[in-house]
Amino acid sequence: MAMKLGDLAAALGVPCLGNPDRLILGVAEFETASPTHLTLAIGTRRKQLASSRAAAFIVAADTVTDAELTRYDLLPADYPKVTFAKAIELLHVPPRQALGIAPEALLAPDVVIGEGSTVGPRAVIGAGSRLGARVTIHPGVVIGCRVEIGDDTTIFPNVTVYDDARIGARCILHAGVVIGADGYGYARDATGAHVKIPQVGTVIIEDDVEIGANSTIDRATLGETRIGRGTKIDNLVHIAHNCVIGEESLLAALVGLSGGVKVGRRVTLAGQVGANPQVEIGDGAIIAGKAGITKSVAGGETYAGVPITTLREWKRERIYAARIPYRLPDIETRLAAVEARLDASQPMQLRQPVESED
Amino acid sequence: MAMKLGDLAAALGVPCLGNPDRLILGVAEFETASPTHLTLAIGTRRKQLASSRAAAFIVAADTVTDAELTRYDLLPADYPKVTFAKAIELLHVPPRQALGIAPEALLAPDVVIGEGSTVGPRAVIGAGSRLGARVTIHPGVVIGCRVEIGDDTTIFPNVTVYDDARIGARCILHAGVVIGADGYGYARDATGAHVKIPQVGTVIIEDDVEIGANSTIDRATLGETRIGRGTKIDNLVHIAHNCVIGEESLLAALVGLSGGVKVGRRVTLAGQVGANPQVEIGDGAIIAGKAGITKSVAGGETYAGVPITTLREWKRERIYAARIPYRLPDIETRLAAVEARLDASQPMQLRQPVESED
Amino acid sequence: MAMKLGDLAAALGVPCLGNPDRLILGVAEFETASPTHLTLAIGTRRKQLASSRAAAFIVAADTVTDAELTRYDLLPADYPKVTFAKAIELLHVPPRQALGIAPEALLAPDVVIGEGSTVGPRAVIGAGSRLGARVTIHPGVVIGCRVEIGDDTTIFPNVTVYDDARIGARCILHAGVVIGADGYGYARDATGAHVKIPQVGTVIIEDDVEIGANSTIDRATLGETRIGRGTKIDNLVHIAHNCVIGEESLLAALVGLSGGVKVGRRVTLAGQVGANPQVEIGDGAIIAGKAGITKSVAGGETYAGVPITTLREWKRERIYAARIPYRLPDIETRLAAVEARLDASQPMQLRQPVESED
Repeated sequence: MAMKLGDLAAALGVPCLGNPDRLILGVAEFETASPTHLTLAIGTRRKQLASSRAAAFIVAADTVTDAELTRYDLLPADYPKVTFAKAIELLHVPPRQALGIAPEALLAPDVVIGEGSTVGPRAVIGAGSRLGARVTIHPGVVIGCRVEIGDDTTIFPNVTVYDDARIGARCILHAGVVIGADGYGYARDATGAHVKIPQVGTVIIEDDVEIGANSTIDRATLGETRIGRGTKIDNLVHIAHNCVIGEESLLAALVGLSGGVKVGRRVTLAGQVGANPQVEIGDGAIIAGKAGITKSVAGGETYAGVPITTLREWKRERIYAARIPYRLPDIETRLAAVEARLDASQPMQLRQPVESED
Repeated sequence: MAMKLGDLAAALGVPCLGNPDRLILGVAEFETASPTHLTLAIGTRRKQLASSRAAAFIVAADTVTDAELTRYDLLPADYPKVTFAKAIELLHVPPRQALGIAPEALLAPDVVIGEGSTVGPRAVIGAGSRLGARVTIHPGVVIGCRVEIGDDTTIFPNVTVYDDARIGARCILHAGVVIGADGYGYARDATGAHVKIPQVGTVIIEDDVEIGANSTIDRATLGETRIGRGTKIDNLVHIAHNCVIGEESLLAALVGLSGGVKVGRRVTLAGQVGANPQVEIGDGAIIAGKAGITKSVAGGETYAGVPITTLREWKRERIYAARIPYRLPDIETRLAAVEARLDASQPMQLRQPVESED
Repeated sequence: MAMKLGDLAAALGVPCLGNPDRLILGVAEFETASPTHLTLAIGTRRKQLASSRAAAFIVAADTVTDAELTRYDLLPADYPKVTFAKAIELLHVPPRQALGIAPEALLAPDVVIGEGSTVGPRAVIGAGSRLGARVTIHPGVVIGCRVEIGDDTTIFPNVTVYDDARIGARCILHAGVVIGADGYGYARDATGAHVKIPQVGTVIIEDDVEIGANSTIDRATLGETRIGRGTKIDNLVHIAHNCVIGEESLLAALVGLSGGVKVGRRVTLAGQVGANPQVEIGDGAIIAGKAGITKSVAGGETYAGVPITTLREWKRERIYAARIPYRLPDIETRLAAVEARLDASQPMQLRQPVESED
């Protein structure tokens, strides 16, 4: 969709510092934008506007200089990335179409579906499930019995939602996601074999949660597994039974949480982080990639390493680990030299004076 | 389902130390149980019965005191977690219903299915496949040709089983599992390009195996990949071609085994463990989370780290890694001081006496 | 399929050093081969031909001795593993059958499908998509709108391809793969909540790419995510938005690449490697398993560790990390002894002479 820059700025709620009649055909990356594109110029790109061919730039509102105003068309924004997101939405995302229930979908007779929803072909929805308004269910999705799905939620192809799970409004579940599979719980019997502990709890996905492709969120043994409102989960993430994730947290790809882990609000878990059973991660904590959360950690701090430590301590350790191969031999050489000098000046003394003296 | 405590104890095969007429409506977690719930009290909770509102407690048989008998309704058990598992089964798991073959399932004409089985809508089963009795195939499952599946096995939605795989009795495959995809095997040709080595072996899942959501178990190049009886695999686990896993082992989430790895009996691989090609892990070995099994390790021992070492050595290393940033500078300061004292008392000597003396 | 050794050698393009009339019924592993099998003897097995019962051996062309010629039937090859791959293909892989479009497949009216293709039951293909010749689409596959798929590509069950993705010729996508899900991109708004950045770029899989079960390759935010020709990706791999992978690279299982990572040509990423956003990995680089690519690395070198370093440095660090718990206490004991000896011989001096002397 094409828009004039002035109209676009108005729709985005930001000032138009430039030619309002300039035609914008789309949003593009800074490096590859053509003269009909709007782009984002933050970070190191902010000072390199001349290197982009873009028609106009979204920039931080407090960085605009008079010299720039004469040379560039600028859209200053308090939250430039948010404005960028809205611009992509406006220019590139076609409005959602309600397609109704495909004749090839298979719904139990008592399934309730709100108005404006789409259920694609080959989708299967079990008895007692209720979908809100403007829900989109793509082909191949299998939804169990007694599942609840809120308004405006989108579920991409080949997702599986087990019985009794609850999914909020405005959620996005990408292809291959599995919600509500059994937790990994066994008891050893007299012979040492594993007896399955039936997993009869549930899983609750609150509003505004997005879950990446092929991620898996297990149901609780008893009680519930819960993903807090606004939390965003990347691809191939594993969340075990009885985990509770707070609101607006970020879990990057290949993160794995053991049973009963509690993650606070606005926590960031970077890629391939793992967590031991039952540990708690405080609000606002940031965990660096590949860390192993071996114990509970307080919020408001950045952590790294296996076992987990503060990022500061971890960096110090890593610096020393890299130095040791050089400094240790040097120390041992110098220490031997010192010992030799002492031996030469005190020839009567034994080599292990700590034990032998006095 | 509700039961009287006495009847429940009888069904569980444990004594009823308490009011046999007390009505139990379900099993709940220790912290959230209400006065109609049975719960499990082991570990730190064993001494905190007063803090739970539960109607009755499953406890270890040898820990019951006379004082407790007057205050609590107890079910003492030799294997409390096993009894807990059975109680959940009794009170919360409805009996399986045989629903037959859905009209929307698609089966090759020669598929054989045992009595009491369920095949859900949208399932596809290829020519020559044979399913045992009381098998449950959920919607969206795709089973290839010549696959064998044992009695009482359950396969959740959107699982894929490639041609010729064999799955035992009483197995559970959770949603999105892939059994029998090609192993990752290539040969470099004269130009350096990767030529695919066709993967024509098979994969055998023995009896009583459970496999978590979206885990993948590749077929063998030649020969077989095998998962031993009673082994339990968590979500998002990767098992490569020609791996052989022993009986009753545990593989936690996001574990990745390279080609030809041999895992013994009753081995535990914690989350995110990886193993190099062809390594062997002895019976009863426990591998801590995130370890990299870079070489074969003997059984009966606990290991950790990358490269793999014993847990004892790994802990020692980690302790020293944390101390080094403090102790190394101290050592260097003291060493410089010693050198300075020697220089002061032996002013004629050079600083590097090892090379220069005599 | 059975072949005479001479005919097999001719088909493989290698000399037949042995009885051309010997009947070969199949290819088998060195250890388990029977006297009707061909096998591969390279590496440590090359010197152990007597320990295998195989009828004939594929060996490296330059290693054949006169003594061996009298005892064994050999197929000498310049690239033994490539010849082995071809032999498996000849003897074990039935020719592909074109089955046409199953009546239970669901295709938009304008879908174009080349000759000799197979579309299995329950597959769904959206409007505007175009498939080449001899393409195989297995059951349960969901292909979005405007997708392009090249000749001779095979897509296994339950794969999802989102709208607008392009997949080349001779590709193999294993079960559960997800191509083109949204990248993981958000902007924080004034309240700190995550605003989704619409992911409107695309994903391009070039020719001859193989992708393992349940791997996920996200579409770009803007622009494209690209997997280069001949690259082979193992199971459960995550490739984020805007990554660009060069030609003929290898990505082993559970690798995770953050947004915008650039991987060169013929790079090897071993299992469970992770990479930070935007890093670049040079041509021919080899990254050891579990490494964390925290910064860009040059090609032609082997790397390991978290943070990433050269394999040489990493090994040195690991050696010292293992020694430190033994050498550090020894150093401290010896240093204390030296200090004690100095104190004994210089009783008037203070213990911290660096600060106190002169």
